[in-house]
Amino acid sequence: MAAREARRAALRVGAASLIPSRAAASAAATFASSSSASSSPSQLASRFSFSSRPLRFLHHHHHPPMPPPPFLVRSPPPRAALLQPDGGLLVDVVVPSAERASKLAEAQHLPQLSISRIDLEWVHVVSEGWASPLRGFMRQSEYLQSLHFNCLRLQDGSIVNMSVPIVLAIDDAQKESFGPSSAITLVGPSGNLVAILRNIETYKHNKEERIARTWGTTAPGLPYVEEAITQAGNWLVGGDLEVLEPIKYNDGLDHYRLSPAELRKEFERRNADAVFAFQLRNPVHNGHALLMTDTRRRLLEMGFKNPVLLLHPLGGYTKADDVPLAWRMKQHDKVLGEGVLDPETTVLAIFPSPMHYAGPTEVQWHAKARINAGADFYIVGRDPAGMGHPTEKRDLYHPDHGKMVLSMAPGLERLNILPFRVAAYDKSQRKMAFFDPSRAEDFIFISGTKMRNFAKNGENPPDGFMCPGGWQVLVDYYKSLAAEESKAAKEHLVV
Amino acid sequence: MAAREARRAALRVGAASLIPSRAAASAAATFASSSSASSSPSQLASRFSFSSRPLRFLHHHHHPPMPPPPFLVRSPPPRAALLQPDGGLLVDVVVPSAERASKLAEAQHLPQLSISRIDLEWVHVVSEGWASPLRGFMRQSEYLQSLHFNCLRLQDGSIVNMSVPIVLAIDDAQKESFGPSSAITLVGPSGNLVAILRNIETYKHNKEERIARTWGTTAPGLPYVEEAITQAGNWLVGGDLEVLEPIKYNDGLDHYRLSPAELRKEFERRNADAVFAFQLRNPVHNGHALLMTDTRRRLLEMGFKNPVLLLHPLGGYTKADDVPLAWRMKQHDKVLGEGVLDPETTVLAIFPSPMHYAGPTEVQWHAKARINAGADFYIVGRDPAGMGHPTEKRDLYHPDHGKMVLSMAPGLERLNILPFRVAAYDKSQRKMAFFDPSRAEDFIFISGTKMRNFAKNGENPPDGFMCPGGWQVLVDYYKSLAAEESKAAKEHLVV
Repeated sequence: MAAREARRAALRVGAASLIPSRAAASAAATFASSSSASSSPSQLASRFSFSSRPLRFLHHHHHPPMPPPPFLVRSPPPRAALLQPDGGLLVDVVVPSAERASKLAEAQHLPQLSISRIDLEWVHVVSEGWASPLRGFMRQSEYLQSLHFNCLRLQDGSIVNMSVPIVLAIDDAQKESFGPSSAITLVGPSGNLVAILRNIETYKHNKEERIARTWGTTAPGLPYVEEAITQAGNWLVGGDLEVLEPIKYNDGLDHYRLSPAELRKEFERRNADAVFAFQLRNPVHNGHALLMTDTRRRLLEMGFKNPVLLLHPLGGYTKADDVPLAWRMKQHDKVLGEGVLDPETTVLAIFPSPMHYAGPTEVQWHAKARINAGADFYIVGRDPAGMGHPTEKRDLYHPDHGKMVLSMAPGLERLNILPFRVAAYDKSQRKMAFFDPSRAEDFIFISGTKMRNFAKNGENPPDGFMCPGGWQVLVDYYKSLAAEESKAAKEHLVV
Repeated sequence: MAAREARRAALRVGAASLIPSRAAASAAATFASSSSASSSPSQLASRFSFSSRPLRFLHHHHHPPMPPPPFLVRSPPPRAALLQPDGGLLVDVVVPSAERASKLAEAQHLPQLSISRIDLEWVHVVSEGWASPLRGFMRQSEYLQSLHFNCLRLQDGSIVNMSVPIVLAIDDAQKESFGPSSAITLVGPSGNLVAILRNIETYKHNKEERIARTWGTTAPGLPYVEEAITQAGNWLVGGDLEVLEPIKYNDGLDHYRLSPAELRKEFERRNADAVFAFQLRNPVHNGHALLMTDTRRRLLEMGFKNPVLLLHPLGGYTKADDVPLAWRMKQHDKVLGEGVLDPETTVLAIFPSPMHYAGPTEVQWHAKARINAGADFYIVGRDPAGMGHPTEKRDLYHPDHGKMVLSMAPGLERLNILPFRVAAYDKSQRKMAFFDPSRAEDFIFISGTKMRNFAKNGENPPDGFMCPGGWQVLVDYYKSLAAEESKAAKEHLVV
């Protein structure tokens, strides 16, 4: 335990610097250079990751020497102990079953507010403690801290990360309908009573400012904005949640929706002494798998006895052209079933948050929520939570900003950030491998778009790109999509 | 000293809370309620300030009890000791005169970059340590921290506030012209060699993202954006400054431009045991003066023996319809000369920063810079650094957000924030007085626009609104403006 803390402290020194991105780069470079496939400089490689920058670029003579690179540290294996949740206690605001009847009776007599599917996803997120120590929708002081500082200050003066505002929008009529009541009842999309929101505070919803400060643009066409903000009301209502029963979606996937408490139990049951989390919203190809397998190998080399992977697809709102959750889960199942990832050391579960596509701002939320689930290592890729600019021909965010911001974010000091090493299809080995810039001509980069086009057109990707069962799921998905489209087109003709 | 620290610690408890705005409101309410002119609830008053909210609104039963209100604390007078600068040491990057000749010789052989008047103002700001511990234009890691977190993390893990990016934009050709040199010479608007920028780092200038995250809007018409960003290059260059000689403007006002070190000396010379700063970019009317005088009275009541006012007009770039610096300084001189403010306990100096008009983001910079000059109390008003929305008929920022954000800002915990009490013209007393909502009909609010219109039209404001000499300066300014405009119109006719 002490050794583990000491190592974490050593890692923190890197972040605790006016030049933390350099420290992170140093750690990353070391991470990369201890592997087989690295690493002379290359424009192509630096396009993807700073993990292959050579060390000699990292020492400016005016900067103090870097701390020892974390992945060269050898120390005795630590004892198993999961990272504490933010604020010390995992929030759980689901009403205990003994109190359910009386709370439900109370809820029936409070002013009611109908909420959307995305609002419900946020209730779910808060209810299980992913956003600990937040206990409800943000009041104004929390909202302002999130918007301006990406973090919240607690009573004891400590800081927790909180980069994305978790807020509930209402319009004038809804605000009026609350009357003088200090509590309201939230009614879900299917008409059931979901939660009581107590000690409410209403305040102005300045959408333009919220969008600008969260996304760094106000260009039209941001998916979450169009889905959940543009048409929303001009007020926000904050308060403390009491959720009447655990949130379920009855879509056949609820058993994958493990709460942070359930995940912690599972990690303990498996005697994990390190938990490394991988956030994704895409099918897993063998490059991802290589990265995860290799991360485990290195953690073992560092002295951990049983590092466990949290394979953690995002399950809330995603944009229309992402592969739907149900198909992704089928694909992930195949990846485990066909042994590409080891089921013994992998926990597959769904992260219930909706997706903002807010790049460097959102990646902090993705990482912070995993601390609350007990993860102490977080793998971050190129342009996390990014997308194309909605109106210009460029990426919305600089591809390196996500990992840089993550490595510097207040409240995430305890989390070890592992920058993604870029994998590509190695024609010489006919498999996915870490990109080696010294023989760049051997590699093919297969983007998400290219992958989707293969599957749509019924073409096969190169052998070894993805396990056959996983690939078949994708082919089936795009076939079903084509069938639906053709059916819709026919119906349109009939009308 | 110990007593002072204890009192500061007590004040910090208020800020160190998930609900700091309430704590700040509590402190403010107490501040207000210990005065004669307060304070039953009123819509009119709450429009201006949360300092007159009654205490009973501030205690939600789910929140822990508030810390003791700071302005009721009575303790023995502290010993004089100015607040430490951010980072512990006041930055001074002006080259010592003994080294000037050799640095100048070196500067003549480096690649040269012409900088604008605003760039020069930032060089000035950094050179004297207003932005301590920043030693130059921001590199990317500092820029990203400023943009996302409004603060920088130092080597020792501590946090300093830094809400406004201090950056230098260059275009492709300028970037090319640097070649492989790690240092460049900055050339001022008048052609003189200003500074060497060392260990430079160039990185992308994503203007849209910078504007959105700094101003919370990307609407066209933001003054600083139009003046300094829209036409600027697509790269930023960061590095450490060595400024070849102290920055002077030779406009007859340089003697007012006291550096943080000079201000600290002046406060020590006067044996100040508290320094309270008032940032402004407008003429001082008697309402301002009342506020400043009253603040001193309360600080005396608290046990301070010699609180000194730093009357600190902003002297860098301001928008076209603000009163120019030279006229404002004339006006401020009259206010002191006619005894409205006491010259014995007031230091009048110019703050050399340019103005962003970025509301809650910028007010943090205004406060942080004054810590570096030794201030430990900061007076904040309604809608600080705010302006009208450039394209919509509303204020750009919520008028209370400035003081709320300031009271919660990371790195400003040491500074005591004093929310502005609203003063208005009291017809019954024929003078400016703190607004008393119980007899609202006695008061007239005279906005900046109304004041300017009086002066423009040669009308007199009500007796007691401003000292006669100060008012005359304003009348003269608008006369000179009218004369210039008529001259310009005539010249236009001749052409």
